[in-house]
Amino acid sequence: MTMDVTFLGTGSAYPSPHRGASALVLRTEGDCWLFDCGEGTQTQLMRSPLRAGRISKVFISHLHGDHLFGLPGLLCTISLNTNPDPQQNLNCVDIYGPRGLRHFLRVTLGLTGSQLLFPYAVHELEPTADQSPEEGQLSLEMTAERGPLHPQERPGRTIPLDISSDSYLLFEDKKFLVKAFRLFHRVPSFGFCIKEHDRPGRLKTEVLKELGNTGLSLCLSGLKPGPLYGRLKAGESVTLESGRVVLPTDVQEESIPGRKVCIFGDCSSVLGEGALSLCNGADVLVHEATLGNEHREKAVDHGHSTPEMAAAVASACCARKLVLYHFSQRYKPSSLQKEGDEDDVSELKRQAEEALQDSGVEVTLAEDLLTLPIPLSRPR
Amino acid sequence: MTMDVTFLGTGSAYPSPHRGASALVLRTEGDCWLFDCGEGTQTQLMRSPLRAGRISKVFISHLHGDHLFGLPGLLCTISLNTNPDPQQNLNCVDIYGPRGLRHFLRVTLGLTGSQLLFPYAVHELEPTADQSPEEGQLSLEMTAERGPLHPQERPGRTIPLDISSDSYLLFEDKKFLVKAFRLFHRVPSFGFCIKEHDRPGRLKTEVLKELGNTGLSLCLSGLKPGPLYGRLKAGESVTLESGRVVLPTDVQEESIPGRKVCIFGDCSSVLGEGALSLCNGADVLVHEATLGNEHREKAVDHGHSTPEMAAAVASACCARKLVLYHFSQRYKPSSLQKEGDEDDVSELKRQAEEALQDSGVEVTLAEDLLTLPIPLSRPR
Repeated sequence: MTMDVTFLGTGSAYPSPHRGASALVLRTEGDCWLFDCGEGTQTQLMRSPLRAGRISKVFISHLHGDHLFGLPGLLCTISLNTNPDPQQNLNCVDIYGPRGLRHFLRVTLGLTGSQLLFPYAVHELEPTADQSPEEGQLSLEMTAERGPLHPQERPGRTIPLDISSDSYLLFEDKKFLVKAFRLFHRVPSFGFCIKEHDRPGRLKTEVLKELGNTGLSLCLSGLKPGPLYGRLKAGESVTLESGRVVLPTDVQEESIPGRKVCIFGDCSSVLGEGALSLCNGADVLVHEATLGNEHREKAVDHGHSTPEMAAAVASACCARKLVLYHFSQRYKPSSLQKEGDEDDVSELKRQAEEALQDSGVEVTLAEDLLTLPIPLSRPR
Repeated sequence: MTMDVTFLGTGSAYPSPHRGASALVLRTEGDCWLFDCGEGTQTQLMRSPLRAGRISKVFISHLHGDHLFGLPGLLCTISLNTNPDPQQNLNCVDIYGPRGLRHFLRVTLGLTGSQLLFPYAVHELEPTADQSPEEGQLSLEMTAERGPLHPQERPGRTIPLDISSDSYLLFEDKKFLVKAFRLFHRVPSFGFCIKEHDRPGRLKTEVLKELGNTGLSLCLSGLKPGPLYGRLKAGESVTLESGRVVLPTDVQEESIPGRKVCIFGDCSSVLGEGALSLCNGADVLVHEATLGNEHREKAVDHGHSTPEMAAAVASACCARKLVLYHFSQRYKPSSLQKEGDEDDVSELKRQAEEALQDSGVEVTLAEDLLTLPIPLSRPR
């Protein structure tokens, strides 16, 4: 299965003509999951090879406008491009994000008379009080949902922190297990860990051939394997008529580890044990680096990170690849960089690499509309 | 005084890379008034020669997302570029729009923890029930403001329809009288009429010279004119020591008529007498033309106009210039038009011109980032 991530906006604070506000898409075989949706995300989508109508899930890391203000408009535009036959639009768009998101969408869609053609549900994560300084805590009253549901709104789940794992279980399906973890920022912020399930290793064709016509060899021709194969798959050893004992590892190679992609929301630090433990061994770890190391104090004051801070997280997680994004608008994209410009975005990469030297973690700078393939990982 | 209008977005329904969502700026000597604020308006502003920080008033024609979703983000970005000294930010940004706008801003700014550095006030226009079909009427409960004011929100006015003039008086200052009028659309929609005050005509220098040292002639040297001049200005005739009677028209040319700019929100028709009467003699009349004449039924179904319909309004108002905007995204800008493209935006201009032939009304097609100067009008 192919898997890639496309950055739609890599700027912090506000969208500009050269850096969109925060948004990225994780694509797996045509299914698109959107992470954050700053103003202008729908226009950036139109500039990309992705199709807005393919977005089936949305994840909002925190309720700051530069990560959220594009969501009502995006939903409206997806709806405009939707088949008007209600029988064709039964798939619910699942939206995950902090408490308050349900109210935000209900008011913005409701007051603008936006009648979507597809159902949606908002699954709210309950933040903990220590996720933000006191002035960043949105009151329970302000974030409470009220009023009637939007006509297309389906009841969503309210997801509390699972204290034992210090994480939020968003969902698990046949392919993925998706969890969220807590970050420290000016308002409650979350990161998301998408873990593809491990897959059974390849069949050892030479062994099957050797076993001859025992029912096991049928696997080779694509026919339904017999009960013996089922038992091997379940981890049991089986004894053939010939008396030969076959072990599961005799016919199947080592399982293929699923990929792990971790996308951090804005933060100046992780909170608790959840983040590092969930993100351990990440194939791709996407982390903000709003300002260079020399502005560390300002970055932390505003709840943000420097490349060095992002590198420390990637290193603690033993990530394979660290992708930096969410750059202050003072950093122009490399293509627009002129000699002598004070703020050079490539310096952010250098700072992260310096902090990660000898660690084996690769560093990439995200740019608007950059697509990064995420190949299947080989065992280390 | 120079005056011009700049179109930031000329597309309907949603922003696209080649047509932004609805927004235009009327600029008078550096003071910028923004009319509608679709998603991406702040990015379009950055592409234009205008400065977001100069926006002192905002007018929202109706609460559809393609005219509104950019407003919370724009206010946040203006704030980010504002001097953090509170003593420097005492000027209140006045925002005019339909009932419900106050609640929209309070929730979007409140839930995102957006702490603006300047005060703002929302002045709400009370729609009448006949401004939209039944399904487009937003409930009184939904549009009611509730909860505490945003920390930077100042109490705004609630402006009912003045039944005698079928219009809404928004404000009058030394330079302008600004009113709103009712339109028929899928949700309550308004148009805005900006009337510059007439200015006194020029002094007739040759007459003043001839009158000699009577106090009147001081006007010529820029010194404070005496009481005689004041009486003349007030429309009285005066008798000089010499016995000569001087009439006001003897010393002053005819007054210079102020300019009138009328900006229509989305509509399939005007409602009542207010629109045509207010917009009579408009120097510039900006009207939507979402779809070509051949799609009239669809346009009207969706509460929109064709070029022919816009032309009929301009003609009824005896406007000098009709500017068409708010084009369906199917119409690419002329610069991107390819031979053989089915939907040609210049055809919309042709249709309006055909409807206006021999009327003397000039037709202009708006494009994103087009600036139209509005010169002082000469008496007809």
